[in-house]
Order: sequence, then C-alpha cells, then structure tokens
Amino acid sequence: VTELDFKLEEIEKGGFEHFMLKEIFEQPSVMQDVMRGRIHLEDNTLHLGGVKDHLEKLRKAKRIIICACGTSWHAGLIGEYLIEEFARIPVEVDYASEFRYRTPIISPDDVVMVISQSGETADTLAALRMAKEKGALVMGICNVVGSTIARETTCGMYTHAGPEIGVASTKAFTAQVIVLYMLALALSIGRTIKDEEIALYLKELSEAPQKAASIIAQHADIRAIAKVYKDARNFLYLGRGFNFPVALEGALKLKEISYIHAEGYPAAEMKHGPIALIDKDMPVIFIATRDSTYTKILSNIEEVRTRKGKIIAIATEGDQEISNLADHVIYIPYAAAPVTPLLTVIPLQLLSYYIATERGCNVDRPRNLAKSVTVE
Amino acid sequence: VTELDFKLEEIEKGGFEHFMLKEIFEQPSVMQDVMRGRIHLEDNTLHLGGVKDHLEKLRKAKRIIICACGTSWHAGLIGEYLIEEFARIPVEVDYASEFRYRTPIISPDDVVMVISQSGETADTLAALRMAKEKGALVMGICNVVGSTIARETTCGMYTHAGPEIGVASTKAFTAQVIVLYMLALALSIGRTIKDEEIALYLKELSEAPQKAASIIAQHADIRAIAKVYKDARNFLYLGRGFNFPVALEGALKLKEISYIHAEGYPAAEMKHGPIALIDKDMPVIFIATRDSTYTKILSNIEEVRTRKGKIIAIATEGDQEISNLADHVIYIPYAAAPVTPLLTVIPLQLLSYYIATERGCNVDRPRNLAKSVTVE
Repeated sequence: VTELDFKLEEIEKGGFEHFMLKEIFEQPSVMQDVMRGRIHLEDNTLHLGGVKDHLEKLRKAKRIIICACGTSWHAGLIGEYLIEEFARIPVEVDYASEFRYRTPIISPDDVVMVISQSGETADTLAALRMAKEKGALVMGICNVVGSTIARETTCGMYTHAGPEIGVASTKAFTAQVIVLYMLALALSIGRTIKDEEIALYLKELSEAPQKAASIIAQHADIRAIAKVYKDARNFLYLGRGFNFPVALEGALKLKEISYIHAEGYPAAEMKHGPIALIDKDMPVIFIATRDSTYTKILSNIEEVRTRKGKIIAIATEGDQEISNLADHVIYIPYAAAPVTPLLTVIPLQLLSYYIATERGCNVDRPRNLAKSVTVE
Repeated sequence: VTELDFKLEEIEKGGFEHFMLKEIFEQPSVMQDVMRGRIHLEDNTLHLGGVKDHLEKLRKAKRIIICACGTSWHAGLIGEYLIEEFARIPVEVDYASEFRYRTPIISPDDVVMVISQSGETADTLAALRMAKEKGALVMGICNVVGSTIARETTCGMYTHAGPEIGVASTKAFTAQVIVLYMLALALSIGRTIKDEEIALYLKELSEAPQKAASIIAQHADIRAIAKVYKDARNFLYLGRGFNFPVALEGALKLKEISYIHAEGYPAAEMKHGPIALIDKDMPVIFIATRDSTYTKILSNIEEVRTRKGKIIAIATEGDQEISNLADHVIYIPYAAAPVTPLLTVIPLQLLSYYIATERGCNVDRPRNLAKSVTVE
C-alpha cells in the first residue's frame, strides 16, 4: 500500500466548468492508470498485487457475494456477469443494506467482496464486518487509499482513479469495472478459459482507453441531444446482459444531477409493466450494441417506436439498421461484449451532465446528496 | 393434476366495476384456497403434494435459482428472503430474460424454480428448458393448471388463485407468496428451524386471510388518499427486508394501470441517489411495519420529510409515532415479519386501483400490456 500525495492542483478543475465533466473526460487516462503494472500484454499475464496471495482461495470459492450500494452496486452487477462468464464461479450481488439486516447465509467457503469508492460507506462497512465475523474471506475494491474498508478487508484492489470530487460517481465506476474485469480474468487463467481468449480479452481491455476517448470526442453531439430532452419529466433506460447494469447506472446519473425521474430495466422486462408508461412524452434510451442480444433489443426498440416513444440508441459504429428506428443514435467503437460497459456508460454520463447543466442544476453538489454515505 | 372447470359466472365481475377490484377483494378467500389441504394446524405439518417426492432433493440443493418476469419476479424475491431465512439454502433470483441469454452456471446439484401465473411466459419457459438440459431439478409455481410450464417442470405447486382476468396481477401474486412461504417451511421442518417456530409461522400464515380482509375493509380510506395524489407525476416506493420486494411490486402496479412513473427501491438506497428527486411534488410510500428494521425506516422517513416530500406510510396498527411523521398512514394488523408481504401489498394494490380509476384509466386492459407475455 502506497499513500498518494494529493496536491492541490490535482483536485482543481483544470479548466473544466465542473469536476464531474473533468472526471468524465479523465476516464481514458484513469483507465490506463487502473491497468498500469497489472496487465502485461507481452506475455498475457495479470499481476494483481493486492489479491495475489489469495487467488487460490478466491478461485475455489463456492460462491462470491458482492455487497455494495448505489453506483458501486451497479459495478458489482457487471462484476457478476464478468466473473460468472469468465471464471464460472456463482456470484450473488446484494445491496449492503439488505444483506446486513437479514441473516445472510455465509460459509467459510464463501468470499464476500465489498465495493465502495470512499471505502467508508456505512452499510457496506457493516456488511464487511458481518461477513468477516462469519469466517468468509473478505475482499475490498476501494478508491480511497487507507480507507476503513481498505484496512479491514483481508485482501483487495485499489481502483487508482484519483480523487473523485463530483458527487455523482463517474471515473470511479469505470475504474471499478476494470478492476472486476481483471479479477475475473485472473480467476480464469489456466482454468475456465483458453489462453487465446485471455489474450483476446486483455487486448480488448487495453484498447478501451482510446475507444473511450473517441466517444468523449463526440461531446458536442451528445450535448445537442441533451438540449432536445432537457425538459423531459421521465426517462427509461434499457439494456441487456453486460449492459443491463449500465442502464441502471445511466438512469441513476440522470436522477442524481438533473432530478429527472429516470429508471433502468433489463430490456425484456419492459413488456411486463413499464411499457404502459410509453407515449410521445417518454424518451427511452436503449443500449443496443452489436452482440448476441442485438436482435432482441431491436425488437424492443420497435415496440417503443410503435407506441411513439422517443428513442435514443447507443449503438456500434457502422450500424445503419438502427438509425432507421431510433430518433438519435450515439455510436461507440466496436468492442467485445464484456468490455462494452466501459464504453456505453460514457455517453450516458455525458448526457446526464449536459441535461443537468441545460436545466441549470449544480451538478457537482446535487441537492440532498452527500459524496459518501457514512451514515446508515 | 386435476383440471378445473371454469364456469362462466366464475369469470364474471360479480358486481365489481373491474376484474382487478374483484380480484383484490377475493384475496382473503384465495389465500384460504392456496392453503387448503396443504396446512395442517392440528399437527403443524405441511402436505405439498406436487413436490413431496422431491423434498429431499430440494432440501439438499446447493443453490436454488429462481427465474421469473414482472410480478412473479417480485414474488421470487420474497421467496429468496423466505427460503434463506427459514431453510438456510442460498437462493439467487434472476430475470428469466437475463438468465437465458447469458451462460448461467447450473450444476445438477442446483434447483431451478420458475414462477409464472400463466405458465406460458416465453422467457421463463426458455429458462426452464435451458436449466432442464443442464440437468438441474426444475420446479414450477404456476396458476394455470395444465399450462406449458406446469407440464414441463419435474415438480411444482399450483397457486389455486382461480382465473385472473385483470392484466395487473394481484391475487396470483399473493398466492405465489403463500406457496413460497409454505415451501420454505417444508424445507425447514426438522432441519433449520425449531418445531415451535414452525407452529408459530403456520399459525401466523393461517391468520393472514382474516387480516387481509380487515385491510380491504379500509378501501374507502385508501380511496380518499388516492384522490389526493391522482395527479402526481412520479412516486417512490420504499421498503426493507421482506417488504423491499413489495415496494417494487407496489410501484409496478401503479405504472401498469395509472401510467404514473413509480419506482421501488430498498429504503437505504435512497441516499445513494434517488433522494435527489425528493421535493414537495414527490409522494413517497414507505412500508414501515414494526419489525427489526423499523427504526431504520423511521430515519429514512425523516429524511424525506426534511426535504418536504409527501409521505404515505403503511404501518402496524397501534403505531402512533409514525402518524406524527407521515402525511397519511394506512394501518395493517400486526403479523410476524415473513407474513407481512401478504398484507402490505394489499393497500398498495388498492391505492393503484383507485388512482387509476380516478384518472379514468381502463384498469383491466391497460395500454400496451398483454396479460401473459408469450413472445420474447
């Protein structure tokens, strides 16, 4: 554990109007920082110092239980998809507040992983302490070095995203997802996925920063879309698979800083109720990248279109089909499905930011919210 | 398997303006029907014909994975709390649509339980077939006798709620929860909970119908609250523990039939984002019955009150404290915490119904929705 020395200029806005925008724009370089020294493309290995002495125990876990709150809980959901897909270990994701107040089933063969940007989130800390008492191996993913959760976990990984000042978490989220991605691969090597797949997924991850930068470069187009929808009262965010949690995260960003009631759902659930909300006043954001569920998402888009809902799609570069169906399309570069959450979340962060600023909201200090929730 | 003979008069409205209202009012007698022949209070035993030959296998399950959609998914979440609490078997609840399109981890030691009122839900059926192929024991909870899911599962239980005509599910939901409650107890007898607890929890369940009737008798008061909030644009529903899934279900009911954007959350998550939405125009429904998380809920209520949100509380009879904090209180009789979802959901169903009718919506045939989702 090395203590960072936060200099004043590091926490300044660096020419940006808000810390949140600065932190969104920082993501390509933060992504590099998270991977630095941990990913070795020359021999396709991962060096994860904070967990290396516990990797065998982690690999043998009967179950990994992830506990977190808010944005970190969304990262945890992506972690579930990544770890189950790569490492074939059953993962359960729980709200820390729910986990701690029921009598959770924890055995010494289980691993409890807690995720918290600040490392001080009260419910998450309580969940960690409960799991430790029951004999589970406890692992932490935190951003703040030396925080209480970082100190009390048996092993863990820092996200190295640098200080996050904006109340709505952005770069800490993408850093959490990268840590979970690297961990999932580390649990898989020599076990559940082939060497050439490891090589492919490491290469795909290493290309995420430059792809993220190309998305951020489209900020003016995203701002133009924000202007169209700034007065909407409600939004739906829909995704499937790896991008279902991104839909939840995109909706949470909009809630937090623009005070618009936005809700995320797995796209297929729309027909089980939320579709009743759809009319011409309801914008719906679809994450519709090219992957195995693409055709399913297209049919969900057609249903919303039939009901005159406005459609904003996040799609893969070169997808012409979708531009015939959606009112607006934001394109992202192609990436392997497990990498896409790192990219699809960026236009959603920017969209929230621009909608909130168009509405005159104080995005760095949204009403009613604290940066870290250290009370229960 | 006995085929029911649905007579015309059985599916008529019986003097009610809508099937949905009739079905809400039927719940006390439906609750009796679900329990009939299955609960034996004289010797505190459960006779669950549809699963009795598989109880040993169910008890030894390494993991129970519940797959469902919509309202049935909410019942599944309550099932998770019940089975983990009583039987100490780890339960994972998944959206059927998400489960089937990833590569879920299923071993022959796992049990996959599917829940569907119609027994024909496309995604749920596909999840069932996938689990069966992978060698898991597949169990079904359906309402429609002889439906595809009922036929294709290895074992299961019918909910015996009678035909449900209203598109928004009400009595089928409470019947599903009772089936899950009985199953959880059957998995626990002689194993994880004491005989006197079995006796207590059976007695508590057997008293639910009369308590439900006393809640329905308050319909005029609930209607009066509906009139106050009929023009609200958004609602939040918050609960904890066994009543967190009820918050989700209450919000879904309002979405489905009134087209108001309502969203459910575990109450502690409010501080991680949704609280930014709270102002004087945002009604918040709290399920705040007397149980181990009561004081936590009270502090959540105070936070909303500070931000001038309107508060409607579902509370336990005799609770005076809460009437000082909430704008409206709907009281329900005391019940043991695991039984409360059967009671707390009823005022939420009635509130949705009355808000929707006050707004002139066609509650039995809400726009865009089908009774059973037999397409993907």
